[in-house]
Amino acid sequence: MNRKATVGVDVGGTNTAIGIVDAIGNVLVKDNIETPSHGDIDQYITDLANAIKALIKSVKVVNPEIEILGIGVGAPNGNYYNGTIEYAPNLSFKGVIHFVSLLREKFPDLQAVALTNDANAAAIGEMIYGGAKNIKNFVMYTLGTGVGSGVVVNGDLVYGHDGFAGECGHTTLIPGGRACGCGARGHLEAYCSAPGMKRTAFEIMARENAGDSLLADKSFKDLNSKMIYDAAEKGDKVALEVFEQTGKWLGQGLADTVHHLSPEAIFLFGGPTAAGDYIFKPTLASMEAHLLPIFKNKIKILPSELKPGDAAIVGASALAWKELDK
Amino acid sequence: MNRKATVGVDVGGTNTAIGIVDAIGNVLVKDNIETPSHGDIDQYITDLANAIKALIKSVKVVNPEIEILGIGVGAPNGNYYNGTIEYAPNLSFKGVIHFVSLLREKFPDLQAVALTNDANAAAIGEMIYGGAKNIKNFVMYTLGTGVGSGVVVNGDLVYGHDGFAGECGHTTLIPGGRACGCGARGHLEAYCSAPGMKRTAFEIMARENAGDSLLADKSFKDLNSKMIYDAAEKGDKVALEVFEQTGKWLGQGLADTVHHLSPEAIFLFGGPTAAGDYIFKPTLASMEAHLLPIFKNKIKILPSELKPGDAAIVGASALAWKELDK
Repeated sequence: MNRKATVGVDVGGTNTAIGIVDAIGNVLVKDNIETPSHGDIDQYITDLANAIKALIKSVKVVNPEIEILGIGVGAPNGNYYNGTIEYAPNLSFKGVIHFVSLLREKFPDLQAVALTNDANAAAIGEMIYGGAKNIKNFVMYTLGTGVGSGVVVNGDLVYGHDGFAGECGHTTLIPGGRACGCGARGHLEAYCSAPGMKRTAFEIMARENAGDSLLADKSFKDLNSKMIYDAAEKGDKVALEVFEQTGKWLGQGLADTVHHLSPEAIFLFGGPTAAGDYIFKPTLASMEAHLLPIFKNKIKILPSELKPGDAAIVGASALAWKELDK
Repeated sequence: MNRKATVGVDVGGTNTAIGIVDAIGNVLVKDNIETPSHGDIDQYITDLANAIKALIKSVKVVNPEIEILGIGVGAPNGNYYNGTIEYAPNLSFKGVIHFVSLLREKFPDLQAVALTNDANAAAIGEMIYGGAKNIKNFVMYTLGTGVGSGVVVNGDLVYGHDGFAGECGHTTLIPGGRACGCGARGHLEAYCSAPGMKRTAFEIMARENAGDSLLADKSFKDLNSKMIYDAAEKGDKVALEVFEQTGKWLGQGLADTVHHLSPEAIFLFGGPTAAGDYIFKPTLASMEAHLLPIFKNKIKILPSELKPGDAAIVGASALAWKELDK
């Protein structure tokens, strides 16, 4: 039985997930609290601390010897250097929230309390528990409602000069192209996120007048990437082209990443990656087509080995392990 | 008088420049030898070693106390990890050349012999002698016949998993766009290098039927970026638009770099940067327009502080200082 564990906290727009995770990435216990919509940060931190303490208590019933070493937090616009959440568009907390120092007050005895953004946490999770255990240079792309990323160089996460590095989802793919949620145009996120795939399906149906597509009876509000996958499995032409086209765009963006960093591998995580070869094959082909000869046929594109359901908690807990390792 | 110095060697397609550089970046003496077109590497290394030894001798006449600590080499397709030049398209040496071990045999007593690509060497030069002395996270773009780059994270150059990281000039700006020298299409280098600016001038003249432009009497072979600058200074509309458009493209590429790495500053080096505001202003405006809000108004775009004529030698010599510092 493992004697040591850390706490992983994933702050989402509506829910905050909490888990206690052992040194090999098993989630021992987990819980959820609401991320408040009212913005009262002190009450929220108190609720969060109480939920963490209750979880620690419950795990000690089973394993009285267990030692909890730290807390890692993944949050949108999380800043590792400052331990802050800064101007997160989808959270009710406005401005700069000093999350780590507030949480630290509730757990003065822990060895580490640290915070970073959710995609950075996922990258650290991949490094500590997943497919990147023996890889010192890699980049993680998380494809979901948005596209996040985490950059690892020589075994360390790259935070940049201000703590915000690793926003590769905002690489420009098409100058003046689709509106991105960030306010700019043509960013990768507008093409390769799950909603981006929906937008692609609508473009293709419009262009081909594809009234016979399995996707043709879905509204713009209702269509999602799982439906596109299911339709592709049934041989739907529109759905298959969505994957081809998404792979072309994603591969172009990954090539930009390779030209910056020459990672050994790029890991893909998130809903759209469940489509396997539908997305991996065209992505690899497109990346290769965009690369300098010195990089061809040597950069791997790999599926994340983190379990989809627990990845956010597990990634956040990995940040605490990484801190303890310093 | 400085007691210590290193040797900088810049391997170019036709010439190899050699200089002895002191700890604050002064070139004490320099020389040139031909980079052979025949591909006899052993003879070339012998010639290079003799030229270096002659320079060391000459500098000791003036300063008998001086100690030469190492040699740094900048070369196209230079690989820092392996000390090799690999498949460089513009050199006569084919395949993989073990440059460092060959040169080391001639200088067994030196503390450091190291090699990297020319743009990486320039970035190290900026860090050791130039404007990046106090900047731990920055990226250097070298704009010339091609566009090279060097990425610095936490004070160290990023080499990636294979020694070739930092080819940001091959970011894709326009999918399926202009032919790039590397064989792909739409890369930044095809737009923002000196020849890229010439191509832009020709596009604009063609589009506007600009027979009255000061550039209209130049052939595609003859037109160069200096002529475009001179014409801009005289108010030529085509030339002014070349700078505007080049800045738009470059800013888009720099924003991709910021989204990956969040550097404190991006340094620009090379011929086109002599145009000052003509190029810096539209580049900054375009970068800002492409950035996520968290990055806006805080990333600097700065001119390199390396002297144009000596930068290649000085950058290469800085690599040797950096090695000694380990």
